[in-house]
Amino acid sequence: MAATGCVRLGMVGGGQGAFIGAVHRIAARLDDSYVLVCGALSSDANRAHASAAEIGLDPARSYGSYTEMFAAERTRSDGMEAVAIVTPNHLHYPVARAALHAGFHVICDKPLATSVVEADALVQLAADADRIFAVTYNYSGYPMVRQARAMVARGDIGALRVVQVEYAQSWLAGPLEATGQKQAAWRTDPSQAGSGGAIGDIGSHAFHLACFVSGRVPEQILADLSTFVAGRKVDDNAHVMLRFAGGARGMLWASQVAHGHDNALRLRVYGENGGLEWAQEEPDRLWFTPSGQPRQLLTRGGPGLYPEAARVTRVPAGHLEGYIEGFATIYAEVARALRSARENAVAAPEVMFPTVMDGVCGVRFIDACVKSSAAGVRWIDLQ
Amino acid sequence: MAATGCVRLGMVGGGQGAFIGAVHRIAARLDDSYVLVCGALSSDANRAHASAAEIGLDPARSYGSYTEMFAAERTRSDGMEAVAIVTPNHLHYPVARAALHAGFHVICDKPLATSVVEADALVQLAADADRIFAVTYNYSGYPMVRQARAMVARGDIGALRVVQVEYAQSWLAGPLEATGQKQAAWRTDPSQAGSGGAIGDIGSHAFHLACFVSGRVPEQILADLSTFVAGRKVDDNAHVMLRFAGGARGMLWASQVAHGHDNALRLRVYGENGGLEWAQEEPDRLWFTPSGQPRQLLTRGGPGLYPEAARVTRVPAGHLEGYIEGFATIYAEVARALRSARENAVAAPEVMFPTVMDGVCGVRFIDACVKSSAAGVRWIDLQ
Amino acid sequence: MAATGCVRLGMVGGGQGAFIGAVHRIAARLDDSYVLVCGALSSDANRAHASAAEIGLDPARSYGSYTEMFAAERTRSDGMEAVAIVTPNHLHYPVARAALHAGFHVICDKPLATSVVEADALVQLAADADRIFAVTYNYSGYPMVRQARAMVARGDIGALRVVQVEYAQSWLAGPLEATGQKQAAWRTDPSQAGSGGAIGDIGSHAFHLACFVSGRVPEQILADLSTFVAGRKVDDNAHVMLRFAGGARGMLWASQVAHGHDNALRLRVYGENGGLEWAQEEPDRLWFTPSGQPRQLLTRGGPGLYPEAARVTRVPAGHLEGYIEGFATIYAEVARALRSARENAVAAPEVMFPTVMDGVCGVRFIDACVKSSAAGVRWIDLQ
Amino acid sequence: MAATGCVRLGMVGGGQGAFIGAVHRIAARLDDSYVLVCGALSSDANRAHASAAEIGLDPARSYGSYTEMFAAERTRSDGMEAVAIVTPNHLHYPVARAALHAGFHVICDKPLATSVVEADALVQLAADADRIFAVTYNYSGYPMVRQARAMVARGDIGALRVVQVEYAQSWLAGPLEATGQKQAAWRTDPSQAGSGGAIGDIGSHAFHLACFVSGRVPEQILADLSTFVAGRKVDDNAHVMLRFAGGARGMLWASQVAHGHDNALRLRVYGENGGLEWAQEEPDRLWFTPSGQPRQLLTRGGPGLYPEAARVTRVPAGHLEGYIEGFATIYAEVARALRSARENAVAAPEVMFPTVMDGVCGVRFIDACVKSSAAGVRWIDLQ
Repeated sequence: MAATGCVRLGMVGGGQGAFIGAVHRIAARLDDSYVLVCGALSSDANRAHASAAEIGLDPARSYGSYTEMFAAERTRSDGMEAVAIVTPNHLHYPVARAALHAGFHVICDKPLATSVVEADALVQLAADADRIFAVTYNYSGYPMVRQARAMVARGDIGALRVVQVEYAQSWLAGPLEATGQKQAAWRTDPSQAGSGGAIGDIGSHAFHLACFVSGRVPEQILADLSTFVAGRKVDDNAHVMLRFAGGARGMLWASQVAHGHDNALRLRVYGENGGLEWAQEEPDRLWFTPSGQPRQLLTRGGPGLYPEAARVTRVPAGHLEGYIEGFATIYAEVARALRSARENAVAAPEVMFPTVMDGVCGVRFIDACVKSSAAGVRWIDLQ
Repeated sequence: MAATGCVRLGMVGGGQGAFIGAVHRIAARLDDSYVLVCGALSSDANRAHASAAEIGLDPARSYGSYTEMFAAERTRSDGMEAVAIVTPNHLHYPVARAALHAGFHVICDKPLATSVVEADALVQLAADADRIFAVTYNYSGYPMVRQARAMVARGDIGALRVVQVEYAQSWLAGPLEATGQKQAAWRTDPSQAGSGGAIGDIGSHAFHLACFVSGRVPEQILADLSTFVAGRKVDDNAHVMLRFAGGARGMLWASQVAHGHDNALRLRVYGENGGLEWAQEEPDRLWFTPSGQPRQLLTRGGPGLYPEAARVTRVPAGHLEGYIEGFATIYAEVARALRSARENAVAAPEVMFPTVMDGVCGVRFIDACVKSSAAGVRWIDLQ
Repeated sequence: MAATGCVRLGMVGGGQGAFIGAVHRIAARLDDSYVLVCGALSSDANRAHASAAEIGLDPARSYGSYTEMFAAERTRSDGMEAVAIVTPNHLHYPVARAALHAGFHVICDKPLATSVVEADALVQLAADADRIFAVTYNYSGYPMVRQARAMVARGDIGALRVVQVEYAQSWLAGPLEATGQKQAAWRTDPSQAGSGGAIGDIGSHAFHLACFVSGRVPEQILADLSTFVAGRKVDDNAHVMLRFAGGARGMLWASQVAHGHDNALRLRVYGENGGLEWAQEEPDRLWFTPSGQPRQLLTRGGPGLYPEAARVTRVPAGHLEGYIEGFATIYAEVARALRSARENAVAAPEVMFPTVMDGVCGVRFIDACVKSSAAGVRWIDLQ
Repeated sequence: MAATGCVRLGMVGGGQGAFIGAVHRIAARLDDSYVLVCGALSSDANRAHASAAEIGLDPARSYGSYTEMFAAERTRSDGMEAVAIVTPNHLHYPVARAALHAGFHVICDKPLATSVVEADALVQLAADADRIFAVTYNYSGYPMVRQARAMVARGDIGALRVVQVEYAQSWLAGPLEATGQKQAAWRTDPSQAGSGGAIGDIGSHAFHLACFVSGRVPEQILADLSTFVAGRKVDDNAHVMLRFAGGARGMLWASQVAHGHDNALRLRVYGENGGLEWAQEEPDRLWFTPSGQPRQLLTRGGPGLYPEAARVTRVPAGHLEGYIEGFATIYAEVARALRSARENAVAAPEVMFPTVMDGVCGVRFIDACVKSSAAGVRWIDLQ
């Protein structure tokens, strides 16, 4: 990537003590498609500037607030083109709104917003501003997830029947938020995270993955949310049933109190003629069982893959591409769209990344789960 | 086991074309605790005698019906002591009832009966007759399942929080019953199998396993049963939520249309201080994660096991004990109780096998799932 | 199996404190093909009788020595037909010799003998006596091992190139023999075990497995035997290279000091057009990779198996058949041959079990390894 | 990393059609420690410039040859500081030699050279020039490999006994070089690759990994090299025995004809008190078995890790770090040393990367294997 071809990126959030900000920066850098030109890395101006210095950002373009940054950057000829929003959830909406108003493209972490109203508003704002708006449901960046989606779409497993998805972690099995750990603190605070706890933080990832691979969104859900750690204000375990148009059924489990699991996102999809299984902790592998035949282990870079998987593969089979690479693929895809947008073109049809529409879908899902659970575990329409 | 010490066993069902009858016979034989002395191996007398000849049963003790057998055997000094009932489900009740009336101990396949009324009646009959009544929820015979139960009971994972259990198969993904395959035919015929399909045939196993290991029975369940194969009269996929007293929650998935799975019964139990994971297809292994420590892989015959697991172990670690051995352990445990009963004693406290009470519990579970699903997926009290 | 059709079996060795004797008895019983009619279960007559009482053997047919047993049984009309020899290694030869002289068929544990001279003599004796002589290389009884052999034989992986076989255990990582543990004591005593330690006890199993699946015996071997536990008189770790006619090459590793392994026998075979992988601790699975295609996981009872595997399968896929079942298959195969022999017929061509010829081959292998290592790790001709 | 703090890197080789050049560039970029300022990306000048344009290199600093590059860059105030050499093997020596003469630090792919004489010369040249010289045995960059090394060094498994290492691939199972595939072509051409085929390309990686983790270099090796693909000029399968001072023993298998394996580097190390197992295709996991205790699964980012692993970890447990991250860690470590060197300081003691000394060790190993095999599989002293 010629440096001149790189997308000029700014970042809001992601200062010292954050986790996901650093991941976004590496992901943006990996394929040499972006250059990070500015940032408002913390809502605390001192912390923002200290964070900027630490990562070598031009001090002149380290801003004390996002409003300041948007105002300054929109007037520069070399100003940022897109902003990565990596703040706690409650700030996604105001920052994205301001960015769209200022004419910037947006790459926003998930969940898109803390209410359906906000999320719907962002869809409208993005359309009005005619800006690209990506939401980093990063697990859809894995090549074997794309392979799975392509196989379902091509009919390799036949008519969809059952979707089993789960996302299990253990890091919140105790009251970590009480220790002041920053990641735990905001994720368990409804005023920053929204009304969903585990269902919002990781359940929304599981939901997106299920929709992305199956190629469809459930019509109805029914949820039982629980809080096992005393004093916690949000759910830390979620059991959800899914109903799809056409009769397919699903289950979703999200838990942050499941000892023995680090980041165990796992999807299984069954159709009339076959089944698929993928696990995030072994991302280069995809199990495929065609009806009446032995199970096959498809691997990234290996034989039998579709172009959808092959085009986002960097290194040969057996040289594992992990979490950062999957995340980077989302960034690389968005960069392709952004470079097309420079020339008022749309990206090539194969370019694929989650958009504000997927973001809305996720927020609706979280909202429906909270409502279903509160109403005694009732079916709620999603659409 | 001295031959004279062996329990004299009769069998009802299990003739040519059956699957589980042969398993019961091997299981009974494995530890040399039983001798099969008689049988009414089919409801068709000719088939019964042909089946008896095939397995070398004394022709004089091959009977054309169970009523005939019970009448004849009760008068012999060397008559059978216990009967194994391995018929399709709808016959469990009448055969068990007749056996108890005739004074025989009973070893009955699951589910115990096709209605709660029948199941409750058997409890009463067994109590009145003062006979041992075992139900072959065989998966509780595996040493590592017993280890898991012992760990939960001893508090190794702390207060129970989440139970995830699933039982996935693929053999009924197509309309196998339409081909005349005997196993498929009766299991999908409500008049023989009862109202539950997958939920009855394998969901009840999953439910028992969850109860056995966690040491408790859910208070409420909520179920969504589906039938994916056109024309099938019973469910072939079941999604169930579980609620336990004290706040623990669970999910159960049973499917016979899940391509890629042969007999994938898997249980995960999470408590405040740890987690456990066991899978039937790797029965000698049990994953244990104590809070804040690395995952441990406990193995049958390996270090760190409790006496409950060690006492039902036959061969050293790494020499896999499989399905038949687990089944045989149930038979061996029942034999210990039967030999105690000969002397009007109760078995040693460590002897453990599923009884008619577990059988009732399973029938109630199936019944509740059918009702919940029919009522629009509502919570149903189990107890 | 009609009781009258059962083979009448006697046993030498396998008394209290033994491991493998009990395994042989269960294996013989599992498929209802044998009845254990007599035994000389220990070289100590008191221990022999106590052991016999414990397992319920007719006291009149519990013998104080094998010579006594052979003399008595040969004169009975209902006398034993075959003898299972499950003593320490050094007794295999004299017992087998006496059994053949007395006209009995022999089922002998491995290794066949403690010297090549003895082993060769048994071949001759068996031929002269026209008796069946099986050697329990039990791992060749697993259905998926038979599948692997059938695949190689049919050319599914093409011309043989590389064979990697290993057998790792940890139970002798410390000086267990110094504690008086009986299994460890005789296995590390050259006067009872022969000159090989790990190479004899488990290396010979690995070697047989490699030969059985590949369908050929190496021409040359080169071995480096080590003893890591101070004071031990035999090797506890063996590294071996193999050269086959036609250019194929192999490696064999046998160790009893490898922490983390219980009974980790594993075979991988590579040909010009494909590869196979099997591990004893997951015996129902066989990995097959045809050139240029995804890996396939074949399972016992699953699709795509050859008759050689299907005919020795008892229960459906996913219902694991373990160590005892594999061992029992050897016994069942021998029973088929023994029943044919009753009628002066040879067994059906598909009946397959390791014979005295395989036994000789194993003894030659052990002998060659010991010699190669002693000579500074030189190539030794095997044949 | 402030841009001004970044190391200015040049590259020789890695133009269009290359594999490893792109990996080096991503690895250098990932942690923001380097800026690629110049390159001589191909020995063909046109191809070099086209490749440079493709990756966005300043055309003024795209050179037609490495000699030209070194001459030009040494005179610039912003000239490159270090050169990455990613050519076929036979060019490592002349390029590295020229780089050292010109005063540049060197990061060279493995194997270091195609002869021991060349390799030894580079050690001397690096010392004379007082330059940092890294060799990219990248697998030592994985956190769990560093954990394993730290555990051995701290005595967690006790005195070393057995080392089993293997590196299996399948991509050269057929005559790929005959199709003109560039990677296959030079790797199987002794004039470019050196005398070793599989033993040089991947066996040297396996050897380094074994040495790195065990903390020691074998004293003697014995090798049997084979060529299975007709017409191939180098080995494609290597079987090696290892002898360490103090009595430890090892085996190494390297193969590029092993169907079913993509990049299956695997190491197992056993000591008196424990065992370790690591596989490159599951790099975030390390199995540890302390004597007499259950196996433990240590994971990157998880509990129980030493600082050596923790300091090279980027993202939390369960968010897999793969091949590129491991490679990037080597680059990041070298960058730390290079920045220290700017100030005439040595890097902090925990900074760790393979140096020219490891490079020499690898070349000696390859040379010894070729000689041992040619001499009829004899022991050869390594040191």
